Amino acid sequence: MSGIGAHEVIIETPDHMATLSDVEEKRIEDLFWAFRDRVIDLKKDLRLRYTLFFKNHGESAGATLEHSHSQLIALPVVPKRVLEELDGAKKYFEYKERCVYCDIVRQEIAAGTRVVMESDHFLVISPYAPRFPFETWVVPKLHHSHAETMSPQAIQDLASVMRSTLRRLDKALERPPFNFVMHTAPLQEASIPHYHWHIEIIPKLTRVAGFEWGSGFYINPTPPEESAKFLRDATPV
Amino acid sequence: MSGIGAHEVIIETPDHMATLSDVEEKRIEDLFWAFRDRVIDLKKDLRLRYTLFFKNHGESAGATLEHSHSQLIALPVVPKRVLEELDGAKKYFEYKERCVYCDIVRQEIAAGTRVVMESDHFLVISPYAPRFPFETWVVPKLHHSHAETMSPQAIQDLASVMRSTLRRLDKALERPPFNFVMHTAPLQEASIPHYHWHIEIIPKLTRVAGFEWGSGFYINPTPPEESAKFLRDATPV
Repeated sequence: MSGIGAHEVIIETPDHMATLSDVEEKRIEDLFWAFRDRVIDLKKDLRLRYTLFFKNHGESAGATLEHSHSQLIALPVVPKRVLEELDGAKKYFEYKERCVYCDIVRQEIAAGTRVVMESDHFLVISPYAPRFPFETWVVPKLHHSHAETMSPQAIQDLASVMRSTLRRLDKALERPPFNFVMHTAPLQEASIPHYHWHIEIIPKLTRVAGFEWGSGFYINPTPPEESAKFLRDATPV
Repeated sequence: MSGIGAHEVIIETPDHMATLSDVEEKRIEDLFWAFRDRVIDLKKDLRLRYTLFFKNHGESAGATLEHSHSQLIALPVVPKRVLEELDGAKKYFEYKERCVYCDIVRQEIAAGTRVVMESDHFLVISPYAPRFPFETWVVPKLHHSHAETMSPQAIQDLASVMRSTLRRLDKALERPPFNFVMHTAPLQEASIPHYHWHIEIIPKLTRVAGFEWGSGFYINPTPPEESAKFLRDATPV
């Protein structure tokens, strides 16, 4: 592996006091356009294997700058966590001959109890076995392994869905600190049938301590059906 | 897997205000005796596969009780993190025909730069590639896979070494919150040639954020040679 990479900070608004949930939808759309354009550009450098797009909001979620921003880190290696997720998805695909995330979308829409909201392109859910209280996933309804292949219509829809989801979290949990992480397929791979990009949002409500460090297991006292209902009922203003 | 387990809280001192680094050595010795005795007892229940022994000290390290305590959790499954560590150690053993931790002990003593202190039975080091600033490992110098096989002499020595190490951390970092986790082999397995129990101490100085969640990689600005020197020089009072 070569010791190269990129670290880009995307400033989401000129307003120092605004949060991502405060800004107008168009700015969130611009954020995802910036992500898409930068990934497509970084991809040209064949030494870069993965781009990690994420946001830390609030001091206890690890934000070191107060001004609202997201980050894009390009790495010369596919991270361990991503490999594990790809590997799990691949095993499911080999067994079922279907994408696990496509199955999740179908099953969650049918069950309804863990759905926070649904739009033309996206499903927002409290996943079946969440590690954290109010962990929330935004999953495209159609199969795409790479997030940077989003259509302009999907980007517009994602901006609206993210804004609504963050405002629901704000309302339900009194503007909690949070992280979101874009989970997407490795840069230099062609479209993958077994992997499906999505965004995981983790409000920072509990603390990772000795048990979690030692086991890799997470203790979550909040059932996803409860958090989904709470977020469904928390109509964003 | 059966839905059973045990969760035991070990109260380290009757003094509500004292921390583990404040108490006399004998009490820390009692703590490790309690660990040993409880593990040997829990082991009789063949449904229990692993005991996780750990301590959360300070609110930001996840402690929910103020009074100084450690915890022992017995699980009906060997945790993911433990399996990964066992697996890595096994691969090294298959390649080198030596225990990786025995090699670490030998190499760190020879190099000296990452050694915090050494006693008859233990080596305290800042490990070669620490995830966190001032991450500190207490490793037995002789090969044992299971911590509960410690001799009375080793327990006495461990109490002295842990007390000194925690007091060094207190002095160097102004009584930081921390976690320690005992890494030991699964309950129902006989002695393993490729695994070597040890204690990992993680002072809570940085925050795990989006990059760490998404990648499983940790950004650590403090080289282990620097933290080891700092802790060597921080003579405990």
